[in-house]
Amino acid sequence: MNPQPQTVSDIIRGIIPISAEWVQKATEHNAQLCIPPRALGKLHSIAEQLCGIQKTMTPDIGRRAVLVMAGDHGVVAEGISAFPQEITGAMIRVFLSDGAGINAICHQVGADVWVVDMGIIPDIDPDSTPGGNRLKIEKIARGTQNLAKGPAMTRENAEKAIMAGFRQAARLFEDGVQILGTGDMGIGNTTPSAAIGTVLTGINVEKMVGPGTGIKTDGIQRKIKAILDGIAINKPDARDGLDVLAKLGGFEIAGIAGCVLAGAYYQRPVVVDGLISTAGALIAHRLCPTVRDYLFAGHCSEEPGHRLMLNSMEIAPILDLGMRLGEGTGAALAMNILDGAVSIFTRVMTFQQAGITE
Amino acid sequence: MNPQPQTVSDIIRGIIPISAEWVQKATEHNAQLCIPPRALGKLHSIAEQLCGIQKTMTPDIGRRAVLVMAGDHGVVAEGISAFPQEITGAMIRVFLSDGAGINAICHQVGADVWVVDMGIIPDIDPDSTPGGNRLKIEKIARGTQNLAKGPAMTRENAEKAIMAGFRQAARLFEDGVQILGTGDMGIGNTTPSAAIGTVLTGINVEKMVGPGTGIKTDGIQRKIKAILDGIAINKPDARDGLDVLAKLGGFEIAGIAGCVLAGAYYQRPVVVDGLISTAGALIAHRLCPTVRDYLFAGHCSEEPGHRLMLNSMEIAPILDLGMRLGEGTGAALAMNILDGAVSIFTRVMTFQQAGITE
Repeated sequence: MNPQPQTVSDIIRGIIPISAEWVQKATEHNAQLCIPPRALGKLHSIAEQLCGIQKTMTPDIGRRAVLVMAGDHGVVAEGISAFPQEITGAMIRVFLSDGAGINAICHQVGADVWVVDMGIIPDIDPDSTPGGNRLKIEKIARGTQNLAKGPAMTRENAEKAIMAGFRQAARLFEDGVQILGTGDMGIGNTTPSAAIGTVLTGINVEKMVGPGTGIKTDGIQRKIKAILDGIAINKPDARDGLDVLAKLGGFEIAGIAGCVLAGAYYQRPVVVDGLISTAGALIAHRLCPTVRDYLFAGHCSEEPGHRLMLNSMEIAPILDLGMRLGEGTGAALAMNILDGAVSIFTRVMTFQQAGITE
Repeated sequence: MNPQPQTVSDIIRGIIPISAEWVQKATEHNAQLCIPPRALGKLHSIAEQLCGIQKTMTPDIGRRAVLVMAGDHGVVAEGISAFPQEITGAMIRVFLSDGAGINAICHQVGADVWVVDMGIIPDIDPDSTPGGNRLKIEKIARGTQNLAKGPAMTRENAEKAIMAGFRQAARLFEDGVQILGTGDMGIGNTTPSAAIGTVLTGINVEKMVGPGTGIKTDGIQRKIKAILDGIAINKPDARDGLDVLAKLGGFEIAGIAGCVLAGAYYQRPVVVDGLISTAGALIAHRLCPTVRDYLFAGHCSEEPGHRLMLNSMEIAPILDLGMRLGEGTGAALAMNILDGAVSIFTRVMTFQQAGITE
């Protein structure tokens, strides 16, 4: 491994594609299993990707964690969320108390939950909180600026936030975590995510925007207006992922981009969750398209923009269960399916082992 | 529990709907969880259905098994399968050797695999086979008759096969199994399944038929012709599930219908797999529509008829991973998602517990 990278450019220079040779070996093994050709669909391609990432025929994703990146958003001033901004901090306390959706799914799949304050408004002291040892502080600022009025953050802070996300993921990978799920918490964060999706996919904003945690028609119109205003006033350069992130993003989205880059840098699989995580992945993908080799999309969210953003990276989601919670729940739940894929790949006999000749 | 039923009519008389009261209580609990309303989509409705089945707010599906029902099919004489008929028996030996797809998925979800010879051509002696204690013999005959030329089985044998499937599932339920997956093995069995789907949904046969284990255009045409011939010569009565089963079915399909009826009779959840299991479920549903209350559809198969058959019962599949193996793999894999649903339902704090007021 290279020395710890200090800049996004350092990270990108350290990223290489997954092993085509191991993918090929895995594909040949799949063809010999005593099942009709490709009859387990996506389970085959998941196993092949894991073999390519880990350069092995016995992929192991037993040690796992989810990083829930949290941030607040100046754009909530535009009336784009169904919940008040205080919920961001309140939910972090729930994560630390083991009581949220992501905790429940992580219990089920055997993943550790870590929470990162990437830039929420309140200060939560890890030492004063039960479960506070699961909270990491990387606070860039007390929430972003309102993207509808100007840049959400400076370019310097965008890079700083990516590096913070990278550092948190790197800590886990260096501690032996074999697969990472990304999650998010931040009231208002479907708006910056849809804004990023609009700019980076080039798809009409109306198709990108949905109800988030539950706004109605009026709120959706305000959300569309905030995004259009933000694009008009900020003029983000779609070719420059860091520019799009700084002008329209959120600190947690930047942190997730850092996690995605870290997965590719450390050659570990990363499972992204829904709209917000995928906005972070889109930023990382614009900075370095090779990150796609290491990515899995845990599920397809009910938020309409999510599928469009995944399509633009040509990543097929694993689950499609009408979920739209965030927190990393879709990423963590999909680890079950990755486990199934590994079990098939490593346990099923070949036709030859089964004594069946063709 | 009533005394062990002796006939299909006895079974049906013992089936009652799930508890609307417990479903309602579960729905109210879901509304109080500290997540936006219904933000975990299908996970909420899965938990509610389990609560209604088990009459509890703490559903438990920890003890689980998959029954792989096996049979051979006279209709393979029409050239409708990509694999030779000998594969049915050969694969049963693989199941017993713990080397097939269903074994691998069941390892992952912690389910026991049981195999039932409902009517395969060869005799496999359980005592002569490693893992043979997992094989149960309920052989109705050495394969069905060719449905394209006449009835696949007698009406008496159709009922006998349903009762055999019921008995095997009952044995597991009485032994404490809390959730059952259904699986199938039988070269040629997508043809009787599509035939049953055609008659019971009323949808055009061309839309019901797919490549099965891998036949090409010619084979698909032969499959369509076999089904049309079978319907023309047998004149199955779509209102009479037992008549449709006898004339177009398979012994494993009948056995699966028996498993589905047993789930409803014993008030246990049953997860069906793909096209063949769903053909069995369709028969059970025609005999007793209330079975739907206890059913989960593990996944949507690549076989085109499968989605149409699920739609006709208004059951939404849980997974959609491009799988088309059968054996029960989709049913078993979906148990992971049911586990996730239970974990969410039983572990997530309410807004009140989290100290968040609305």
